[in-house]
Amino acid sequence: MSDFSKGNVVIGQSGGPTAVINQSLVGAVETLRDSDTIGRIMGARHGVAGIVAENFVDLNDVDADRLEAVANTPAAALGSSRDKPDEVYCRKIFDVFKKNDVRYFFYIGGNDSADAARIVNEMASASDYELRTFHIPKTIDNDLRVTDHCPGYGSAAKFVASAFMGDDRDSAALPGIKINVVMGRDAGWLTAAGVLGRSDPADGPHLVYVPEVPFSTEQFLADVKEIYGRLGRCQIAVSEGIKDMTGTSVTVALAEALGHRVERDSHGNPQLSGSGALGDFLADYLKANMKVPLETLRVRADTFGYLQRSFAGYASEVDRREARECGRRAAALAMSGDLDGSVAIKRLDSSEYEVDYVRAELSDVARVTKSLPKEYINDRGNGVTEEFISYATPLVGGLPVLGKL
Amino acid sequence: MSDFSKGNVVIGQSGGPTAVINQSLVGAVETLRDSDTIGRIMGARHGVAGIVAENFVDLNDVDADRLEAVANTPAAALGSSRDKPDEVYCRKIFDVFKKNDVRYFFYIGGNDSADAARIVNEMASASDYELRTFHIPKTIDNDLRVTDHCPGYGSAAKFVASAFMGDDRDSAALPGIKINVVMGRDAGWLTAAGVLGRSDPADGPHLVYVPEVPFSTEQFLADVKEIYGRLGRCQIAVSEGIKDMTGTSVTVALAEALGHRVERDSHGNPQLSGSGALGDFLADYLKANMKVPLETLRVRADTFGYLQRSFAGYASEVDRREARECGRRAAALAMSGDLDGSVAIKRLDSSEYEVDYVRAELSDVARVTKSLPKEYINDRGNGVTEEFISYATPLVGGLPVLGKL
Repeated sequence: MSDFSKGNVVIGQSGGPTAVINQSLVGAVETLRDSDTIGRIMGARHGVAGIVAENFVDLNDVDADRLEAVANTPAAALGSSRDKPDEVYCRKIFDVFKKNDVRYFFYIGGNDSADAARIVNEMASASDYELRTFHIPKTIDNDLRVTDHCPGYGSAAKFVASAFMGDDRDSAALPGIKINVVMGRDAGWLTAAGVLGRSDPADGPHLVYVPEVPFSTEQFLADVKEIYGRLGRCQIAVSEGIKDMTGTSVTVALAEALGHRVERDSHGNPQLSGSGALGDFLADYLKANMKVPLETLRVRADTFGYLQRSFAGYASEVDRREARECGRRAAALAMSGDLDGSVAIKRLDSSEYEVDYVRAELSDVARVTKSLPKEYINDRGNGVTEEFISYATPLVGGLPVLGKL
Repeated sequence: MSDFSKGNVVIGQSGGPTAVINQSLVGAVETLRDSDTIGRIMGARHGVAGIVAENFVDLNDVDADRLEAVANTPAAALGSSRDKPDEVYCRKIFDVFKKNDVRYFFYIGGNDSADAARIVNEMASASDYELRTFHIPKTIDNDLRVTDHCPGYGSAAKFVASAFMGDDRDSAALPGIKINVVMGRDAGWLTAAGVLGRSDPADGPHLVYVPEVPFSTEQFLADVKEIYGRLGRCQIAVSEGIKDMTGTSVTVALAEALGHRVERDSHGNPQLSGSGALGDFLADYLKANMKVPLETLRVRADTFGYLQRSFAGYASEVDRREARECGRRAAALAMSGDLDGSVAIKRLDSSEYEVDYVRAELSDVARVTKSLPKEYINDRGNGVTEEFISYATPLVGGLPVLGKL
């Protein structure tokens, strides 16, 4: 039985799941279970929503084999949430925390989740309630500040790179124009990862469009014509988050032009995934404007969708290990006396890829995101640089080796 | 140097590539290279198109390591083709065969490719030209007759099942309605494979729609309402090839209603893949008709697209092995004196999964396809049976083991 006289723990998962967010959950839980100062470990179903509803799972007694299976399962095993707690919401969270003597709160998520943790933490301080609040980073978007990269990104990048590798061979076998739409609302990190399997200058993706560079359909057409004229085919990586010259999301502009309602989440972010509209629009645009007889022009668009963050059985080993360690470190920091923070991965300046884990301020991780820096995007704004490839390659933990004839 | 006095070989790949079509190529080549009676082994670039253009790759001298890397690479390493040779086309093929003393012709492909091989073979017989013509089966659609299953299906089924497994956990974490569109023009074999990772009655996919059952939007809505009302979420597998009560492809009807030109290949087949239109249409239909407040109704659609046949690094081991063996057997049959045929996989009546390889008549494999039999579809026409699961499970060669809390 759990000891109710010790500080109890609430741990939750938030935002879009990843292939390794459960590694972080299990990393924190196994570290907490090893300690004498920890009482009940309560997993909140569906993040903050589960806290206010007191919908908890006991994590003290889950057996180790099951916990290990959970760690290797994509998506949030506790359930996730898109709720952003306001003043009233936080008051309810406190009532639940006080009632249950919760002294440790771990929230695994992205920048919105770090912000939620920050708000809860500030309310705790203002109420003189001793609470240790730790954010554990996750996001396939890789757009959190301070950390070198985010747990979840390496696995999504491995999926995207492997998808581009196989699709590039498919497109070489039946040549034409192939558009692949990749997740990423504001940052092009995941779209850029499409290039990581290239082993030859003729390999795709031949063009990469990220949200950091304003998207022009005219320039897009000119770029595709140039590659298609030279290679007889063209494989293209496009972020779902590309924006036009006015900063309007191309997907949103298109949806509105077609008379579709654009969904927005509780953070005001437009819903971009779960639709093939952007890829279909770009394919139709090329068919209409390439000035190549349509009988001989093969144009296809795929939207990789939720598989990028949830595909089972294909996570990056490096990402798995690091996500686990982020959970462990957050638990260790909280138990060693730190009152709040987030865990950041620091890449060491060594010849082999090596990292360390450091504490970051919640306020430095919350809200503002990190875009792909200029030096990772080529001068023409339609591809990535060698610096990006050097940065991202270790994170995917190896890719398939392909052969050609 | 190759010996021109021996019978020469042309080998080609055709139709939509798979993750293991190169295993069959390598299986045939390695067996032919072991023989004294074989001269040049000429790989035709882009199938029959490469034959008439005399665009060949020498396969006698490719080193074994490279050949092995090719075997493990998705898509057609020689390039593929959608051409269907007519009388004139075949005359050109013969001219090339005679000129190059080609006595063995291997064509790796689906039913259209078997038909192409059959036509070439009949013209050879009629011209008294001794030619040994073998078809080597491949198709992710699993719709060839005679054979128990087709090389290429197991790997695509493994991809689809793993995608559904991860996506189901993702959909459980952020509940709503999730539609996943799966490849398959006329047969629902691949869509049905979405269920292979289910380990619990609450696991998705909760509904499966295949081309063999006429699709009614009203029934679809009623089915989804029932599941959503009971589980609070619903994961759906839909074949891109679903047809309405009149036999019209829902994708084609939708494209035409939206004013899009529908592409058809040289066999007259409409182009269904490479577009997200069907998924988006079904999602919009549910949003408009579920009678649930849109703020609380999360509906998403993904179209798995070309990744199903080309994803790198995730093939079924069983499929890899069998595809390799089909190539080897075709070469062995041709060299042992058989004049023509296809290789079929025969499942043995044993407690463990075991197969043998037998010769099939070209005419039995050509043209007509094999649908999902009635006993594999449930009575309501919105799911699959245990018989299907028993049939398909051994072919994927194992799936990830997931854990839940």
